[in-house]
Amino acid sequence: MLKNVPSLQRLVDQLRRIPFLASRNLYRVAAYFLEVNDQEVDQLCAVLREVRANVRRCAVCYSWAEKDSLCIVCAAPQRDKTTICVVETWHDLCAIERAGVFRGVYHVLGGSLCPLEGIGPNDLFIAPLLARVQNDVREVIFATNPTPEGEATASYIAAKITSSDITISRIASGLSTGSTLEYTDSVTIHKAISGRRQF
Amino acid sequence: MLKNVPSLQRLVDQLRRIPFLASRNLYRVAAYFLEVNDQEVDQLCAVLREVRANVRRCAVCYSWAEKDSLCIVCAAPQRDKTTICVVETWHDLCAIERAGVFRGVYHVLGGSLCPLEGIGPNDLFIAPLLARVQNDVREVIFATNPTPEGEATASYIAAKITSSDITISRIASGLSTGSTLEYTDSVTIHKAISGRRQF
Repeated sequence: MLKNVPSLQRLVDQLRRIPFLASRNLYRVAAYFLEVNDQEVDQLCAVLREVRANVRRCAVCYSWAEKDSLCIVCAAPQRDKTTICVVETWHDLCAIERAGVFRGVYHVLGGSLCPLEGIGPNDLFIAPLLARVQNDVREVIFATNPTPEGEATASYIAAKITSSDITISRIASGLSTGSTLEYTDSVTIHKAISGRRQF
Repeated sequence: MLKNVPSLQRLVDQLRRIPFLASRNLYRVAAYFLEVNDQEVDQLCAVLREVRANVRRCAVCYSWAEKDSLCIVCAAPQRDKTTICVVETWHDLCAIERAGVFRGVYHVLGGSLCPLEGIGPNDLFIAPLLARVQNDVREVIFATNPTPEGEATASYIAAKITSSDITISRIASGLSTGSTLEYTDSVTIHKAISGRRQF
């Protein structure tokens, strides 16, 4: 269908490169960009350029921050700098912040170890984390995802933290709130039972 | 979390305006645009400008076409111009073309009637369709979606086509291939039974 509309074909090809745009929505997003007014498209392009010019990784935790400043968490005096929560990505950090339960600081790894995709320890911000924990840190909480890669990443880094003064913990795995045992996979049930807590 | 990163906040706000980007993916898409190289972003912006400069609606069927030309279907001599398949949007047209079963031509309405959202007959390409059917058309197939709006749109237009020489049809409703009766809603089962065909 796109054969005789080469410009549209190029737009769809370009949109396909953006992750998390499910392929069945590609055509809808393309149609949106055709139907919307010029201003909207100019604004998107301006905002994209601006964000790339102004946003850098925080020098402490590798989350995103406005250029030449710390991120909001690292800059906040009331956050407990002795507790570091290690997450894979910035959006994992956003999820924890939305829950509003954590008062410490973060460390963003930038992904998880995945030898099959060629992602090794040097591709993640692991070295800066190991440097951070040298200075007055009491607890490191691994909040990497409960996937094989996330678990392996947590284990790998935990083994590198040798100081006995630092508590190393892992967020709990188990049944999600609102889920039912009947439809829960057996690995989750296994983890929920082995990680049971006294009532 | 975005409070002290105003550029990033603006990007997320801008991305939120794009339909079909589920809100939980907004942050992932934003992170993608931060991490990708400059060339990729420049290319997206260039392609967006190009598509808007070069692509127009086909003068016959209101599908998308390169500027000053008919769309690929209307331009093809082998397509049967006497059978018009009426669809709501361009992506519905793409879905039918992918199935490769239809040899006639299309008419894109640009949406469906929806009084609650203020979309009336004059907001859709209904008048050009009524003009088209005056000229040597034998069948009009309504392939609007089997939603209340799609059904109403088909009924509304069908009532306007008064010529008795034109066959007016509606695509079949019933069970999807691979579905099971057990998990099918009763409206679909009702339509499947009332629309049964001799074996």
